Amino acid sequence: MRERDFLDRLEGHADAVQALLGALLSGDARPDETVRPERLLAAMRHGVLNGGKRMRPALVVECAALFEGDADAALRVAAALECIHCYSLIHDDLPAMDNDDVRRGQPTVHRKFDEATAILAGDSLLTYAFDIIAAPETRLPDATKVALTLALARGSGIGGMAGGQALDLEAETRELDEDEITRLQRMKTGALIRFACEAGALAAGAADEDRQRLVRFGEIVGLAFQLRDDLLDLTADSTTLGKAAGKDAARGKKTLPSIHGIQWTQSRLAGLIEDATALLAPYGDRAAMLTALASYVATRKN
Amino acid sequence: MRERDFLDRLEGHADAVQALLGALLSGDARPDETVRPERLLAAMRHGVLNGGKRMRPALVVECAALFEGDADAALRVAAALECIHCYSLIHDDLPAMDNDDVRRGQPTVHRKFDEATAILAGDSLLTYAFDIIAAPETRLPDATKVALTLALARGSGIGGMAGGQALDLEAETRELDEDEITRLQRMKTGALIRFACEAGALAAGAADEDRQRLVRFGEIVGLAFQLRDDLLDLTADSTTLGKAAGKDAARGKKTLPSIHGIQWTQSRLAGLIEDATALLAPYGDRAAMLTALASYVATRKN
Repeated sequence: MRERDFLDRLEGHADAVQALLGALLSGDARPDETVRPERLLAAMRHGVLNGGKRMRPALVVECAALFEGDADAALRVAAALECIHCYSLIHDDLPAMDNDDVRRGQPTVHRKFDEATAILAGDSLLTYAFDIIAAPETRLPDATKVALTLALARGSGIGGMAGGQALDLEAETRELDEDEITRLQRMKTGALIRFACEAGALAAGAADEDRQRLVRFGEIVGLAFQLRDDLLDLTADSTTLGKAAGKDAARGKKTLPSIHGIQWTQSRLAGLIEDATALLAPYGDRAAMLTALASYVATRKN
Repeated sequence: MRERDFLDRLEGHADAVQALLGALLSGDARPDETVRPERLLAAMRHGVLNGGKRMRPALVVECAALFEGDADAALRVAAALECIHCYSLIHDDLPAMDNDDVRRGQPTVHRKFDEATAILAGDSLLTYAFDIIAAPETRLPDATKVALTLALARGSGIGGMAGGQALDLEAETRELDEDEITRLQRMKTGALIRFACEAGALAAGAADEDRQRLVRFGEIVGLAFQLRDDLLDLTADSTTLGKAAGKDAARGKKTLPSIHGIQWTQSRLAGLIEDATALLAPYGDRAAMLTALASYVATRKN
């Protein structure tokens, strides 16, 4: 796949999910709602409509497309996942957590609004993700909605993302060994990326074998994502990243790149791209965009 | 219904939901989980297994029993609701919100652990509520699970509890009028109590007309709950309450009891008990416990 075509398609997905999230989080309360408090809604919008790369939504939509799933339903599931991802960023940025002032070149939610509003905006986005999946406008069979709800809750809860974040807090007080670092990352960032791929397969009603293959693909992409993230933290500058660089070292947090070095990391990333490509080989050209996505995740500059 | 019988039955529900929550939030990770981080789990347990009255779970279980719903499934839905209620207490207690040190005579989660862990414990409990509803162990039809997921997300999100909390923050910066106070309370505490009653009806597969009746019952109980809460804040002492009293006045927050006085409030509460009782009259003796619950909510001492 040509790089220009890949980037156009990725941008197309980002625009689509941005437009949907903007419409969902509009000032108009639904008929069943009394009101959508203005400041809270503005904080949610600031945290979500922030021009992110929308890598997770793209994975959902492309994995669903692989099995010719309904594109509109897949996009709604992608939007739900992005709500979870963005809630986690809002809460991670809080003073009690990472205490970050800037996110993607913009003030973080608690800096632009206030801490209490940031906490509630995160809570409301988390909750809204499950609203989107269950809503009648998401035209999927009930059994699929239940499976998506369960997988999303498990990918983002104590056994997944939130649990990984808790292990990350622990990593600031004692040095983790390599197994612990890997486990932490599988939970903190891996679980949601894995969910993105599984969700696409689920939404499209893929066969069990295909779903399991996509889960494995998601695990590989998750590993590559985190390795690349840690490598960038080690080597890039804050301007390129759009967020603070060198944070891990500053906090005395070990990462696989800091343990094994840059060359080892690059070779490992190349291996992961190969694994991901091999996994999707049975789908032939239809998987070209997904393969390119895996490669992009492993080689991105920010 | 005799008071002793009522209190025994209420305590029975509280014990049952406490036991279920204790089992669900045990240290044993499920087969699909890598690990349940110890400190995060302990914080979740501290926030949930705190000997609350479990009024909301009792409403779920009793509303389901009214239509002879499966008691085990109803109890699981009740546990999910309690996870949402307790997450909201953990986050409300945070320094950036109400900054409370004590809850039910115990240190609040951020005091016993730390702020970051309290934020994550709240997030994880919120997420876990949806896990419980969708889990295969909750033996309900998929359509029911989807309806419950949607109703819970809407009752607790921006159009419900979290939105009400945001309006409450606003109330600290400007004086709300009576309509605004009523709307705030409908969202902040009313929406989840309303959900409790609707959820019982949904879990039991009640007819639409019955479900709507239970929703109205829940709205009345929610109003009574908040009026009583505000009255207690005005008149009770902190020891009896198990939390700080006189908070509203100290923050310059108006409530209906502070506007209209104690006598008006007591007469209004009596009226709400009558309304609730009249609503459930068609169910005869089967609704005795629910009627007693409404009366209890409106007359409780803490």
